[in-house]
Amino acid sequence: MPPILPSHFPRRRLVQSLLLAPTLALPMSGIAQPAAPFDESDLAHAARLRDTALRGPNLAHELMASLVTQVGARPAGSANDAKAVEWALGQLRRLGLANVRAEPVPLVVWQRGETRATVIAPHPRELVATALGNTVSTPPEGIEAELAYYRDFDALRNDAGDGARGRIVFIDQKTERTRDGSGYGRAILSRIAGAVEASRRGAVAVAIRSLGTDSDRIAHTGAMRYDPQVASIPAIAVSVPDADWIAERVLGRAGQMRLRLAMARTSRVEATSHNVIAEVPGTELAGEVVLLGAHLDSWDITPGAQDDASGVGIVTAAAKAVMDGGRRPRRTIRVVLFANEENGFDGANAYAAKYKDVPHQLVGESDFGADRIWRVRSRVSPAARPAIAAMAKLLEPLGIASEDTPGSPGPDAAVLMRANGWPAIDLTQDGTRYFDVHHTVNDTVDRIDAGTMPQNVAAWAVVAWLAAQADARFGPAPR
Amino acid sequence: MPPILPSHFPRRRLVQSLLLAPTLALPMSGIAQPAAPFDESDLAHAARLRDTALRGPNLAHELMASLVTQVGARPAGSANDAKAVEWALGQLRRLGLANVRAEPVPLVVWQRGETRATVIAPHPRELVATALGNTVSTPPEGIEAELAYYRDFDALRNDAGDGARGRIVFIDQKTERTRDGSGYGRAILSRIAGAVEASRRGAVAVAIRSLGTDSDRIAHTGAMRYDPQVASIPAIAVSVPDADWIAERVLGRAGQMRLRLAMARTSRVEATSHNVIAEVPGTELAGEVVLLGAHLDSWDITPGAQDDASGVGIVTAAAKAVMDGGRRPRRTIRVVLFANEENGFDGANAYAAKYKDVPHQLVGESDFGADRIWRVRSRVSPAARPAIAAMAKLLEPLGIASEDTPGSPGPDAAVLMRANGWPAIDLTQDGTRYFDVHHTVNDTVDRIDAGTMPQNVAAWAVVAWLAAQADARFGPAPR
Repeated sequence: MPPILPSHFPRRRLVQSLLLAPTLALPMSGIAQPAAPFDESDLAHAARLRDTALRGPNLAHELMASLVTQVGARPAGSANDAKAVEWALGQLRRLGLANVRAEPVPLVVWQRGETRATVIAPHPRELVATALGNTVSTPPEGIEAELAYYRDFDALRNDAGDGARGRIVFIDQKTERTRDGSGYGRAILSRIAGAVEASRRGAVAVAIRSLGTDSDRIAHTGAMRYDPQVASIPAIAVSVPDADWIAERVLGRAGQMRLRLAMARTSRVEATSHNVIAEVPGTELAGEVVLLGAHLDSWDITPGAQDDASGVGIVTAAAKAVMDGGRRPRRTIRVVLFANEENGFDGANAYAAKYKDVPHQLVGESDFGADRIWRVRSRVSPAARPAIAAMAKLLEPLGIASEDTPGSPGPDAAVLMRANGWPAIDLTQDGTRYFDVHHTVNDTVDRIDAGTMPQNVAAWAVVAWLAAQADARFGPAPR
Repeated sequence: MPPILPSHFPRRRLVQSLLLAPTLALPMSGIAQPAAPFDESDLAHAARLRDTALRGPNLAHELMASLVTQVGARPAGSANDAKAVEWALGQLRRLGLANVRAEPVPLVVWQRGETRATVIAPHPRELVATALGNTVSTPPEGIEAELAYYRDFDALRNDAGDGARGRIVFIDQKTERTRDGSGYGRAILSRIAGAVEASRRGAVAVAIRSLGTDSDRIAHTGAMRYDPQVASIPAIAVSVPDADWIAERVLGRAGQMRLRLAMARTSRVEATSHNVIAEVPGTELAGEVVLLGAHLDSWDITPGAQDDASGVGIVTAAAKAVMDGGRRPRRTIRVVLFANEENGFDGANAYAAKYKDVPHQLVGESDFGADRIWRVRSRVSPAARPAIAAMAKLLEPLGIASEDTPGSPGPDAAVLMRANGWPAIDLTQDGTRYFDVHHTVNDTVDRIDAGTMPQNVAAWAVVAWLAAQADARFGPAPR
């Protein structure tokens, strides 16, 4: 949204003194002048926090690299996830944040079995493939069938014929490279709902083109879902070049292809993970929370540097920046490192339930890698829009433009927003490169540009501080 | 080497007519004027072949994609290798080349078992790893030991201490990105001789940083060798990011690391592969051969698009260009697609033995991907240097510079050169990107720039044609 106040408009102190001087002839014209949403000293402090974060040591990168290197893959409920929780508690305490704690999150864990996808005919070839999260396994002897090719998910959904029956459906849905992630958004149903749509048409399994913008022979995993009304069939993703090869073979030569899938036993076990929480305690409004989220878990096959060790580093460094800024915030700034974002949002759901009666001034999340933030959007009450606009003004020097469309505050924060009506902010990162490595073994530290992380920290520090200081309540979020 | 004749020097016909007119006052000054190495019409024909190849349909790319897509990985002696031989015979016949045949090459095949490399301590982590070609397997229970870190191969070779004893040696030898492949050349001993040097120092296994310039979590395989005097220990390569992670953990924190290697049974079996041969028959010097080589096999884990389906496409298309040029060459131009370049040069050795008494005018090979040729070097007799210089003149418009240093004509051609003293030419391709995917699953069709292949074909057509036409014998190669 555009700033309400033009940049030459007098600042708060000046406005107040003018309002207290009714004899001065001002062109008020009977229109009520809005009160400035922030005290001038709070704005100046926000600018200082921002500029200090830009210059300072790169704590966000240090934390990201530490989590990836010392813990690595950390699927929720695993031994490594427990290690990640210990790591987070240790780091947050070391940094001096307050009320550091781990809150239990019960969950059911899906465990991957070994996956093998082989072209049997016309020419034998091993495909690079990975099981999708929540898939069932195949029978021990595997599944062998002809392939039914669909250009994209819509082609499958529009298929009223019998072409998929008894076959392995292949969905060649491409993921377009975009800055805002919309290419992924347009492709994601092929992964989440591909098995259900294929099974409805009598297919025995589904294989999708990886939701990736890379051209590596590395498959991308991610969550899929079943419908209890429809038979559960195995679901895998093959790498992008393997998908291209399948398309070339099947389409280019109008040929048939026979595939065999063998997926060892997957299992579902009950386990416990934890949301890890730390705070910069507030003063007179300490009972109200400004929430900076990220998620601690990763998929089992990836080190999860972008997804989401980066977010863990960014929001933790932002809270630390506010803590070290020399002034205590009015409201409490709370870092929440959510459990199991990747496969069920158990952490976000547990948090939403546990804290539903605690007023949340604003929720946000960093979960789109480590590249620059280029846009701010929000879902706040109309009364809070001047405050968001003033905030946006301070983000402008970071190259962040405000946009007056409803944003999405990140997956866990969106769960909180929907569950409790809490207002939310979306600091959109540049996702151009994000889906090159998303949910793959390639999501490693060396892919991350350390230089862009301080800009993220600076932006979150501004947002956290000003949300904590604002006179206005930001909520409830508009429906 | 620089052209002997400056570009304004009169052409051959003119020279001849002048030499036949002794009364004409020419500034000969008692210096013998060298005969021009080529007939003017042969040079003009070479230029036509070159320009036609640049413009024509991209046969080289078509053949490359066909081999990769229809056959895929084709390790020598495998069922897929036999399929590649069938593919090659079919294509060469379809194109109308003469004397198309497959010549048996007996060999012993090394077969890979499943490989697993796991960090046990300080934190469990699965490494992305691949067995090196020819490695022995581990005992069924695997090998578990502390890691001994070496910065590079020289550090290992210079280690006179006891640090490797009982340990798994890790060699973190980096591969520098270079245009001419010299970075790979400087790193290759870590792969080939790492196991021997480690075993000499009492190590129980060796793991190397992949010889790759990428940052993908994909490991590069390649040949290693044992020394019968030294115990054979298992040898693997880990991906570049995994190597960085190991270095960061071991060096950055001065810590220990415990590894477990488990490599399922590898085996060595006797098999037969084939050199595939096709010709453009010569006329009055048909008994002499101009050899354009490439290799048909690939490592077992890779589709082998750059290595070396590209070379197969390039030299085949070059021979076809000469065949279609409207004039028959004086010497026979022979395409040889060698068996098992990757792990033993059995095809090159068999060819060298079988044809050792057949005069070879020139041997060359395309085995460095599909990017542009930027340099020509040669190993020919001094008498042939004017001919090479004239050839180089015709390559100049392709952006190819001649260089007066001994080149390497490609691995199989180098075997022939060394075995039989045959003269050789080196058309050096740009290898800047080559080691990003070399010997990995990532060596796929989509990585190849189709636009650069015709330049390769044009250059090989010029070389093949002029070598076939030259009056001078190019051999023997200088020692």
